[in-house]
Amino acid sequence: MITGSGERAIGVIAFDADDTLWHNETRFRQAETFFKNLLGEHATEGQIDSVLYRHELKNIQSFGYGAKTFTLSMVEAAIELSERSVTAQEVEEIIRIGNEVINEPLVVFDDAKEVLEKLGESYDLMIVTKGDLMEQENKIHRSELGCFFRYTEIVSEKTASSYLSILERHSIEPDEFLMVGNSLKSDILPVIAIGGTAIHIPYHTTWIHEEVPDEIAAASDHISLESLTDLVSYTSDKLRPKKNPTRS
Amino acid sequence: MITGSGERAIGVIAFDADDTLWHNETRFRQAETFFKNLLGEHATEGQIDSVLYRHELKNIQSFGYGAKTFTLSMVEAAIELSERSVTAQEVEEIIRIGNEVINEPLVVFDDAKEVLEKLGESYDLMIVTKGDLMEQENKIHRSELGCFFRYTEIVSEKTASSYLSILERHSIEPDEFLMVGNSLKSDILPVIAIGGTAIHIPYHTTWIHEEVPDEIAAASDHISLESLTDLVSYTSDKLRPKKNPTRS
Repeated sequence: MITGSGERAIGVIAFDADDTLWHNETRFRQAETFFKNLLGEHATEGQIDSVLYRHELKNIQSFGYGAKTFTLSMVEAAIELSERSVTAQEVEEIIRIGNEVINEPLVVFDDAKEVLEKLGESYDLMIVTKGDLMEQENKIHRSELGCFFRYTEIVSEKTASSYLSILERHSIEPDEFLMVGNSLKSDILPVIAIGGTAIHIPYHTTWIHEEVPDEIAAASDHISLESLTDLVSYTSDKLRPKKNPTRS
Repeated sequence: MITGSGERAIGVIAFDADDTLWHNETRFRQAETFFKNLLGEHATEGQIDSVLYRHELKNIQSFGYGAKTFTLSMVEAAIELSERSVTAQEVEEIIRIGNEVINEPLVVFDDAKEVLEKLGESYDLMIVTKGDLMEQENKIHRSELGCFFRYTEIVSEKTASSYLSILERHSIEPDEFLMVGNSLKSDILPVIAIGGTAIHIPYHTTWIHEEVPDEIAAASDHISLESLTDLVSYTSDKLRPKKNPTRS
């Protein structure tokens, strides 16, 4: 049990999932490498990146995040980059690459289970993840970490207003809410904006869509840690669990 | 205000969305017709139906319901049915057909707004819809009906356990819960199974995936009505709003 004597009373610690509790972006990067090899005769790596990202941005508007959108975007990018000469076999191969993003084994961070177990003794834990509903549900299931969370929230976008609506739904005050995640754009800035606390644990690679200009990142009042393990000692030093009659 | 004097006290009336509040299945049927025309030289309508449905079933497992899954399934079915002779132009056309399912105007049922307005005076209203998170959110937004609902629940599957978890989350007892929808499989049977009340309002066409054997349908203890409008008089005759201090 964490008896932290810190000044800030926290009731709920929320975690991002992809690249915070398990590896995710690396799966997409791997798929992109296959895709670039497949289209290598039609365009340079830079051109492929740029056309693929343009189709992703467009499709995210109607389809949301996730492997489905990524797969459809690869198919469309291949048609465009090949000037409509891509073959049915190649389209089939692209869909196979997209499916692998979903189907390959999920690799949970080494320290995730132990950290959640420890923090769960003193705090209510929540997952807040954005993306495709079924895809994220499947990942939570396969991670075997679902049992540590009192609340699971899968949202289409992480904005100040989506965080506020989550807090309102569970009668959680912003000042007792701590969010932990790897994306400044999705996990940190909107939570600071609504008066919550946010801890950034960077992942080694960031999808361009989640990047934030340096000056905005530097001006943000959040804490940075190197790993989930560091979170346990930070929590113990700087925070204390908020007493709540409904939590024992 | 409905002062219904009926025996059953209901606190929350939940509505399915697709084909209960607005037309949806017809959009997919229209897309299928285009798809069959496109592949007419390769296979019969029956063969196209069967191969497309097989790919849909497979993709629903990893990707969930919705237009993205439908679009990917059409691309895969086209590759298979054409024995890999489908062209990039045809794949492009298939993706365009899939996008139209999402982008064409949403047609809300004529009586939906009035009925929700009326019932909302006496009951808390909820949407329970299954499908793709962003796609369903976009449809709720475009329907302009969102304002009538106290709760919005988008789930990946509608099962007894997913209904129970929704009720638990909002501290709603099954016996004060009424579900209204067009699908026996998703809206009616699981709600009856958990001790709730269910009203079936059939849509003129049912996706094969939602069909239920006649003997199971006949044995189910649910009410059938012809339209949303009928729901107002039914509610007024047979139900009464449950008094709840948090609802005024």
